[in-house]
Amino acid sequence: MAETLTVIGNYLSPYVRKVLVCLELKGIPYRIDPIAPFVGNEDFSRLSPLRRIPVLIEGDLVLNDSTVICEYLQDRFPAPSLYPADPLERAKARWLEEYADSYLGDVVIWRMFFQKGVRRFLFNQGTDEEVVRRAREEELPVALDYLEPRLPGDGWIFGELSIADISIASFFRNAAFVRYQVDPLRWPRTAAFVARALALPAFARLATFEDRTLRTPLPEQRAVLAQMGAPLTETTYGDAAPRYGVMRLG
Amino acid sequence: MAETLTVIGNYLSPYVRKVLVCLELKGIPYRIDPIAPFVGNEDFSRLSPLRRIPVLIEGDLVLNDSTVICEYLQDRFPAPSLYPADPLERAKARWLEEYADSYLGDVVIWRMFFQKGVRRFLFNQGTDEEVVRRAREEELPVALDYLEPRLPGDGWIFGELSIADISIASFFRNAAFVRYQVDPLRWPRTAAFVARALALPAFARLATFEDRTLRTPLPEQRAVLAQMGAPLTETTYGDAAPRYGVMRLG
Repeated sequence: MAETLTVIGNYLSPYVRKVLVCLELKGIPYRIDPIAPFVGNEDFSRLSPLRRIPVLIEGDLVLNDSTVICEYLQDRFPAPSLYPADPLERAKARWLEEYADSYLGDVVIWRMFFQKGVRRFLFNQGTDEEVVRRAREEELPVALDYLEPRLPGDGWIFGELSIADISIASFFRNAAFVRYQVDPLRWPRTAAFVARALALPAFARLATFEDRTLRTPLPEQRAVLAQMGAPLTETTYGDAAPRYGVMRLG
Repeated sequence: MAETLTVIGNYLSPYVRKVLVCLELKGIPYRIDPIAPFVGNEDFSRLSPLRRIPVLIEGDLVLNDSTVICEYLQDRFPAPSLYPADPLERAKARWLEEYADSYLGDVVIWRMFFQKGVRRFLFNQGTDEEVVRRAREEELPVALDYLEPRLPGDGWIFGELSIADISIASFFRNAAFVRYQVDPLRWPRTAAFVARALALPAFARLATFEDRTLRTPLPEQRAVLAQMGAPLTETTYGDAAPRYGVMRLG
């Protein structure tokens, strides 16, 4: 490999986590520029026209969108494969990834994690408790009812670990940040599946950086992560002067 | 092929159009159930958990999301290929597809086509002219500035026609429904590219059904399309009793 890959994006983003877990599982060296969402500088806008994280940089290639990036990593570094070989199963895996990115993204990220953390942390705004209540008690259960019969009692959805398992588990990690745990009595397969996936070394390695990020004010995150041995880039696309406190959740 | 493929989704949706153009280009026989967005019946909810169109059905396989469906068609029917062979170009093609689905989807569909047509047609609500003005004069130009240097002066973005060309062109077809034409003086490559793509036989064949759909009240659309020779399914997942007039645009 000519260039070490760079990922722009914060450890707390489930979309960034998807990409990092793929990199970890494929054993691809990378560096990360852990900018927070919404606080990229002007150069970041040039790299990410929709101002979204993650962004992958490999030499001249600048790539946006976690789904597109994971497909690229699979095409470029095929082993171990994270997509089922059978076209029909591959299609179903891509659909479950899209379902997670889309529906779990709306509910877990925008209506739970954003409300309980990011809104207060970045924008100094209060939590809309009714939005959070509806997300926890009505909208997330819809997803859990959908997933429960589709998840295996043991192992992974399509036999080998795939992008579908990774995506779904990524979002439940953010649910855990706001103290939501899947009820093992109501959704036993999903609860066990999430626990099994998040116990994988690839997720567990990232979890230490995630936990520390949650407890560290934004301006100090780079220094603290560097001290912990996170594989940071030398320069950052993050806005230099955010003045925010620690993210308080739950 | 054992089963004829079925697509659930209206001819006016750019996401449905992407899938139909892929089917046309690959010469795959299909049938279509042209339900309007938002009016699927209860069985439709079971097939499409996010209640989105298109849905692809092939025997027991039920697949959602236009991007996932197009990838499946490519995997299942590889020739002619609609994805660049080079991993780097394939990644860029997927990103342009995502950019179109996401940004052009927001602007062209939700802020222009929905406001000028669907909102009045399905919900009997007025148009928010300020939303439409901002979309036409500010938000769509951002996309055109982004696309202009990325589109070729002749032919297709990655040499052979790909999913990127198809996706981008699909959305400008909906822009044309609300009488938006790309200014050839300001964005000459984009204007010529869109015209070139929409003149392809695959797009042109669908255009006759699209034009007719636009001028026909929803309850009569199936009968009219059948009379024109559209490849309709025998049964429908559309709500049986919508009472709406002709979609008036512009």
